[in-house]
Amino acid sequence: MSEALSLSDRAAVQRAPIQFYFDFSSPYSYIASEWVDAVAARHGRRVQWNAVLLGALFQTTGLKPLVEYPVKREYSLRDIERSACFAGVPFKQPPVFPIATQNAARVFWWLAASDHAQAVAWARACLRAYFARGIVINDAAALRALAEECGIDASAAEAAWADATWKDKLRQVNEQALAAGVFGAPFFVVDGEPFWGNDRQVQIESWLASGPPKGLA
Amino acid sequence: MSEALSLSDRAAVQRAPIQFYFDFSSPYSYIASEWVDAVAARHGRRVQWNAVLLGALFQTTGLKPLVEYPVKREYSLRDIERSACFAGVPFKQPPVFPIATQNAARVFWWLAASDHAQAVAWARACLRAYFARGIVINDAAALRALAEECGIDASAAEAAWADATWKDKLRQVNEQALAAGVFGAPFFVVDGEPFWGNDRQVQIESWLASGPPKGLA
Repeated sequence: MSEALSLSDRAAVQRAPIQFYFDFSSPYSYIASEWVDAVAARHGRRVQWNAVLLGALFQTTGLKPLVEYPVKREYSLRDIERSACFAGVPFKQPPVFPIATQNAARVFWWLAASDHAQAVAWARACLRAYFARGIVINDAAALRALAEECGIDASAAEAAWADATWKDKLRQVNEQALAAGVFGAPFFVVDGEPFWGNDRQVQIESWLASGPPKGLA
Repeated sequence: MSEALSLSDRAAVQRAPIQFYFDFSSPYSYIASEWVDAVAARHGRRVQWNAVLLGALFQTTGLKPLVEYPVKREYSLRDIERSACFAGVPFKQPPVFPIATQNAARVFWWLAASDHAQAVAWARACLRAYFARGIVINDAAALRALAEECGIDASAAEAAWADATWKDKLRQVNEQALAAGVFGAPFFVVDGEPFWGNDRQVQIESWLASGPPKGLA
């Protein structure tokens, strides 16, 4: 298999992947999903995408979404849109927000079991559908149509999201994420160093380029 | 008075100042306090510093400090230190944290009533003392000594922080900040646009240089 890889591919394989935790209903996850692979690639890294359920993480940790604090809601909606524009990422406030996204996440893990790249393509399609195209991805028909768009058999996808195997897998991933200190999304781990938030892009890129900043213990 | 100003000073006076809300016990406010004037100056702006009491804002809004969520505490302490290192700002985790900082804030407003620059110098001295020198600034003796270091009469400073005038002023400022949508610190308002967090530095600088990002409504 290694003959098929270019030199830069081989270097990327040899270095630990960036762990990227995202939630299908998290707008900052969506923005980050649009730059994380490019940032990693610039530094010879790959990205391991991990779909989590922020709702489940919040339940365990006693946190709640930004937009549920009345005083933060207006600011957050503005900041999300502004951050998307600054990142050059198309964004349209979804008609319903936030939503439950366990079905999209279960399909992700079903696909990831055999092909991480296809799972990532699915994740991108779902995030773009929800945050740029106004498609509410907790709707079964919308999700089936998205699967077809991605070249995935819609009935197999629906079977997967109803399957206890993938329900359990998602539950396990959430538990592992919590154990790894993940309490929000997007969340990144680079060589053991945790970074929380789309706004840590600059720090992550600097870390990948030159390691810890001067003076950090 | 205008003859004494250079051309660039005059331009800065003509454009609206950046509103900068900070709390003396907020490490991210400290980091931001070290760059906000330079960023403003690069774009011909001045900064209006506003000392607020985050504790009072939190009480009204039902929020609490990052470090009081157990799951976020360890990450936050790491992120604060790392963010300071990335910004090139000296930082040492204070021996007691967080603390009540209303006395430092009242002295700030007492000074600001006659000389904004002196109030800013006081704010810098307090923030650096607490976040880089291990001086716990809710201690009366430490605060008196800091005043002396800044060329401020220590007894006058102590009289100010015990004075109902400056207690009321701080209360008013907090209420005005809340009314202006401020719910955390540091918080910035640039020509009506709100930015929350030390990590919005890049967006603020871009906004000052070229206005809203492309596509922002």
